[in-house]
Amino acid sequence: MHIRKQRLLTPGPTPLYPPAMHAMMASDIHHRTQDFRNVYAAALADLKEVLGTSNDVLMFAASGTGGMDASVSNLFSRGDKVIVCCAGKFGERWVEIAKAYGLDATVLKVEYGDAVSVSAVRAALDAEPSTKGVFVQASETSTGAAHDIQGMAAAVAATDAILVVDGITGIGTMPLDIDGWGIDVLIGGSQKSFMIPPGLAFLSVSKKAWTLSETATLPHFYFDLKKEKKNADKGESTWTPATSLILALGEALKYVKGLGMANLVANAQLLALAARAACTELGLELFAPGSPGSSVTSVKAPKGMDSSVIVKELRTRFGAIITNGQGSMKGRIFRIAHLGYFDFWDLFAMVAGLETILYANGIPVEFGRGVAAVQRVYAGAAIQLPVAVG
Amino acid sequence: MHIRKQRLLTPGPTPLYPPAMHAMMASDIHHRTQDFRNVYAAALADLKEVLGTSNDVLMFAASGTGGMDASVSNLFSRGDKVIVCCAGKFGERWVEIAKAYGLDATVLKVEYGDAVSVSAVRAALDAEPSTKGVFVQASETSTGAAHDIQGMAAAVAATDAILVVDGITGIGTMPLDIDGWGIDVLIGGSQKSFMIPPGLAFLSVSKKAWTLSETATLPHFYFDLKKEKKNADKGESTWTPATSLILALGEALKYVKGLGMANLVANAQLLALAARAACTELGLELFAPGSPGSSVTSVKAPKGMDSSVIVKELRTRFGAIITNGQGSMKGRIFRIAHLGYFDFWDLFAMVAGLETILYANGIPVEFGRGVAAVQRVYAGAAIQLPVAVG
Repeated sequence: MHIRKQRLLTPGPTPLYPPAMHAMMASDIHHRTQDFRNVYAAALADLKEVLGTSNDVLMFAASGTGGMDASVSNLFSRGDKVIVCCAGKFGERWVEIAKAYGLDATVLKVEYGDAVSVSAVRAALDAEPSTKGVFVQASETSTGAAHDIQGMAAAVAATDAILVVDGITGIGTMPLDIDGWGIDVLIGGSQKSFMIPPGLAFLSVSKKAWTLSETATLPHFYFDLKKEKKNADKGESTWTPATSLILALGEALKYVKGLGMANLVANAQLLALAARAACTELGLELFAPGSPGSSVTSVKAPKGMDSSVIVKELRTRFGAIITNGQGSMKGRIFRIAHLGYFDFWDLFAMVAGLETILYANGIPVEFGRGVAAVQRVYAGAAIQLPVAVG
Repeated sequence: MHIRKQRLLTPGPTPLYPPAMHAMMASDIHHRTQDFRNVYAAALADLKEVLGTSNDVLMFAASGTGGMDASVSNLFSRGDKVIVCCAGKFGERWVEIAKAYGLDATVLKVEYGDAVSVSAVRAALDAEPSTKGVFVQASETSTGAAHDIQGMAAAVAATDAILVVDGITGIGTMPLDIDGWGIDVLIGGSQKSFMIPPGLAFLSVSKKAWTLSETATLPHFYFDLKKEKKNADKGESTWTPATSLILALGEALKYVKGLGMANLVANAQLLALAARAACTELGLELFAPGSPGSSVTSVKAPKGMDSSVIVKELRTRFGAIITNGQGSMKGRIFRIAHLGYFDFWDLFAMVAGLETILYANGIPVEFGRGVAAVQRVYAGAAIQLPVAVG
């Protein structure tokens, strides 16, 4: 038996930002006090700033799926025609929500690992001019593929429909210009690039989306965007807020503001580039080579090997928790996460650990070869050194 | 700017064991209650168990140096003849303490990087039969060298002197059989293999040491071994105990007991072996090749390079805090720690980071070559997998 630290390295929950965790200790605060109103208002303002939008930004005590639910139940009516882009497990979740609320959904489905094209969305919009909404994942976490949100936004902007983007793992891993591109609703979750535990969902809501809400008739109670907006303007949440998570969020947002959202995105993108280089160098096949996102890098297990073995041995040998494929991909792929609080030190060890496990399972591998690919990406990127601290 | 997590990787404070840190949150406890007496008594009992001794084990709110002070001020008298083994900065501390208390010390001094031999101790004891004590570091943290404590104990046991061992970084990195070898006083500190923050010193005290205390006349007040023993037997500390650290210690000791002290030692030794292999592979020269300990591996900077650059760039590029040489060794060596809560994942990244920094400073280095040496040691050690957890 040897020491084996537990390390949370999944695409959500992502590694936690320590000062945010320490901030949770200040939870002996009551949510209906001016002290907490200040915390809440600051968190909402900082969230708006890092998302870089002038749209309203609201928050719920909920998982990201709660944000997805809210976007449907507040903005649509039974029988509304919508388009759902479905490129994986989370696209399927949009399909399920649309079905639960009785929307009339046209599903643009592609194979796992592929992305729905802008032209497919455009064609579907052309085919049905009364379409009220288009639903898509910015980053499809289950496969690692990313969608062309800028292109889709341009297609949707020319119609009466709104674009509803699940940005849960897209935020912080790809540019998402809410105002510039015209993303009507963007949904985020605390346990992703925000580096804190699960429990908070965020939504940005455009004027066009608010207009749609005026005629929407689907029933809802907990997730009430209008009521939430009215209370948020007073520094309050409608229902009891998850105070500990909001205290953590405040700290994490300070960090993200200091780093800069563009740098957070660049960090994930550079790590993803390095991970792809390492896997290719090790002879491993990428799962979404055509449109790889930077939230996770999905990698196929070597021929004859179950990816579950890699996931399991990273845990049992090194205490490193990563994710297997989801649904039908389970056993076929494993996923290396990059979103949020990840750095090169993490990736150095991840690739060395992966090489060690492949070797232990009889896969021909040259020790250090994948790590060297990561080091070359680091060296080549000429990463700017922060000002020396003495 | 990119993400750069802060990672404490020094030989003390060592990386913290998270459940121990969480336990500190239960500090809203009063130290003169039965609840706390139970915590304190359990910590002392567990400490005794992991140290594997039937001797008394006491604890002080103090740094390790406080434990060293206590061993002198409680067991000796002004003018007592003692032998001090001095192989580095911590050996020099023994010399200073002996001088502060007016002991008549014979100093066995060796070059930094070397260790004092058993034969030198034996010769000094033969030369002065009235010697009351021999002071030594099990592991000289400033250089990485280790002493032959078993050999020294055998030499001292044949005399009236007691052997006082600074085990602050020796505990958990080398076998130290207190009862079997006859270590009269062994001193430890919380921020080393015990994986918690600084603030607690531990001492084991043998019958022979207690006997010496009966005739000892040096003044002392805070560090009173007899009073502490009397109170410890009632589950109390004499003065106000550092409750948060003791709560943390309780958790850490549960972990060390579960792992087993022998495995904790083997873990550090294997990591040290791998670190030496990596450095040698990278063409770096070890600083204490003759008697390398497993608490830290001291490595000389490449010719023409200041080791401070390596230490600084590990921090500025990767947020990794390691230690420079101390005293006259500053700028000449850097030290990779292994004691306590360190694992192979840490070392994979450490060596990859080191390679990257050498390359960035114009030192010829083949990326991944040192990492591969670590991987080979890991693979060769046939590390036993824990029972799969599903």
